[in-house]
Amino acid sequence: MSGKKMSSSDIKRKVGILGSGQLGRMLAISGAQLGLTVSHYHDADSPPAEIVSKHIKGSLRDETEVKKFAALNEIITAEFENIAAETLKFANSVTPVLPSPEAFRIASDRLLEKQLATKLKIPIPKYLPVATLEALRLASSELPNAILKARSLGYDGKSQSKVGENLEEAWNSVGKRASLLEEFFNFNFEVSQIAVRGSSGETAFYDLARNTHERGILIRSVVEPEALPELALKAQNYVSAILVELNYVGVLAVEFFVKGNELYFNEMAPRVHNTGHWTIEGAETSQFENHLRAICNLPLGSTQSRGPCEMINIIGSEPDYRAIFSTKNAHLHMYGKEPRPGRKLGHVTVTGTTESQIAKLVNNLL
Amino acid sequence: MSGKKMSSSDIKRKVGILGSGQLGRMLAISGAQLGLTVSHYHDADSPPAEIVSKHIKGSLRDETEVKKFAALNEIITAEFENIAAETLKFANSVTPVLPSPEAFRIASDRLLEKQLATKLKIPIPKYLPVATLEALRLASSELPNAILKARSLGYDGKSQSKVGENLEEAWNSVGKRASLLEEFFNFNFEVSQIAVRGSSGETAFYDLARNTHERGILIRSVVEPEALPELALKAQNYVSAILVELNYVGVLAVEFFVKGNELYFNEMAPRVHNTGHWTIEGAETSQFENHLRAICNLPLGSTQSRGPCEMINIIGSEPDYRAIFSTKNAHLHMYGKEPRPGRKLGHVTVTGTTESQIAKLVNNLL
Repeated sequence: MSGKKMSSSDIKRKVGILGSGQLGRMLAISGAQLGLTVSHYHDADSPPAEIVSKHIKGSLRDETEVKKFAALNEIITAEFENIAAETLKFANSVTPVLPSPEAFRIASDRLLEKQLATKLKIPIPKYLPVATLEALRLASSELPNAILKARSLGYDGKSQSKVGENLEEAWNSVGKRASLLEEFFNFNFEVSQIAVRGSSGETAFYDLARNTHERGILIRSVVEPEALPELALKAQNYVSAILVELNYVGVLAVEFFVKGNELYFNEMAPRVHNTGHWTIEGAETSQFENHLRAICNLPLGSTQSRGPCEMINIIGSEPDYRAIFSTKNAHLHMYGKEPRPGRKLGHVTVTGTTESQIAKLVNNLL
Repeated sequence: MSGKKMSSSDIKRKVGILGSGQLGRMLAISGAQLGLTVSHYHDADSPPAEIVSKHIKGSLRDETEVKKFAALNEIITAEFENIAAETLKFANSVTPVLPSPEAFRIASDRLLEKQLATKLKIPIPKYLPVATLEALRLASSELPNAILKARSLGYDGKSQSKVGENLEEAWNSVGKRASLLEEFFNFNFEVSQIAVRGSSGETAFYDLARNTHERGILIRSVVEPEALPELALKAQNYVSAILVELNYVGVLAVEFFVKGNELYFNEMAPRVHNTGHWTIEGAETSQFENHLRAICNLPLGSTQSRGPCEMINIIGSEPDYRAIFSTKNAHLHMYGKEPRPGRKLGHVTVTGTTESQIAKLVNNLL
């Protein structure tokens, strides 16, 4: 097989990723398969992405070094949303950043993303912005049953606090930062919609994943193709509205609470997402490949599910490898990280023909 | 999810690969996903495996350096069979080599592998060993319609020659080396059986691939699950016999000619194989992952096909990327190599629900 070369202006081949964790690692693996040159920039020692890509060590705050890194690449992306606006600005002044810095700005701020949802008529649970302890006191009389969440840096629930009788304690525990007091929302379950939009506007959606969290950390995502057709249609409409509004390019993950037949916006991430890891084995094209296709100006791959599947996270300590490897259709992904309590060390995706059969296998592993 | 740690004596975690081409690259990607530490040893500059693993540059003939590399790892394997026996001996004196050096010795010598097939009652086309030009003259009167193939270093057909009227020309073209004069065998088509055997003797087989070669280079492999049940059974029996005879550990690829309802042994490779690349998307567990599972003393993954598929090689020049990316269910794998005539630069696997639908898509890409 042979054919025409693509001109370099057409397809981007050199992708620079800000950050070097497991998301960067899985992006790099997809990139290598596609023949792209993927490099990472971060100040971590021996990060997960290092072994599978070129890793350039440097501070995200160092303008000169960030610009140098950007200059080595044709496109820049990031694997976490809580990235400083100035870092994205440095990079974007040299090489296009996708998704856009504006998408990062909104997705890294709980207030901005909720305002966006409201603007687009996507239902959201009640919330009140609070910037001072005094404001918190006022807000909590209006929303007595609520959680206080810092507007930014809310990754994996580490900057949120239940609001009890002692408001000052809650205020201190989120670092006295501008926050949202969010109604304690009584939902049935949580789903996430992973979507991808190419530079031409071409958009594709994966099947909804039903997610289970424990102490703010994702434990399990269950995908049953076409099991929730009504909710899936709503999710696609809501997420479409966000993608178009932001002229978005890349993978976007949006988490929703489900209550009755309605979806309520929870949060979004302008990147590949833990609740989309199942797509590596569970879908025709993974979220990692489709993110790269989108930002590199390539047509998107099929997001169709291959069948039902479940993903479970490996958290804190090493798993029982023999149990995993002895489980039919279990696919292990380790991130090369040292065990530490609460740390995501890897994940396992179990595929199969029926959800009940898969759930049985997964329950044996948990 | 958390669980027991495995003791290090149980599972091997550090895999050293002799060679650093595309097979090593794809092994490294699987290894990274499993959380193994994969490194490569070879004297190439910027080889395909470098970007996705640790690459140690050195000569395969350098005893000290090969032993040093072996000492860094818990298990050693190789990605090509034409590796010097002494290299494997150096490595094996420090760290176990799997598959065994004996398997490499046999698979790298067309005479030895044919003698093995004969011993195990696997049908083979006629051949005569020739060690001199004089012997070639005698042999060619017995087998007038034949091909001369050097016993070793026969990779991708570069050391074989059709035997015409000028015997001396053929003899020179294979480098005047110990060779086999092989009957020009009139077969219907060619298949390969990719098999894997674990250290406990556990064995698994992939579906047969039907292969097409052009000028000695693999162009296309077609997999239609359960399409050839009678041949598949024979292939499994023949390959089982080889695996048991060699007490084999790892992936073994065996190519057969098909004539009527019989299989005829052509050659074997003690490694992951180009005709098994389809297993990345086409099977539940890829040949790369299963090779690593086998040599690392882990249970094997399911070899079940996900459905029909075809793999085509990208040879010599860059492909039409946009055509590939626009083809539904086409999965591109590039190896990071500079284009050069006859060079394998990558492959594409197309999956789908029916073989005819897949063949249509593939024909558009060829």
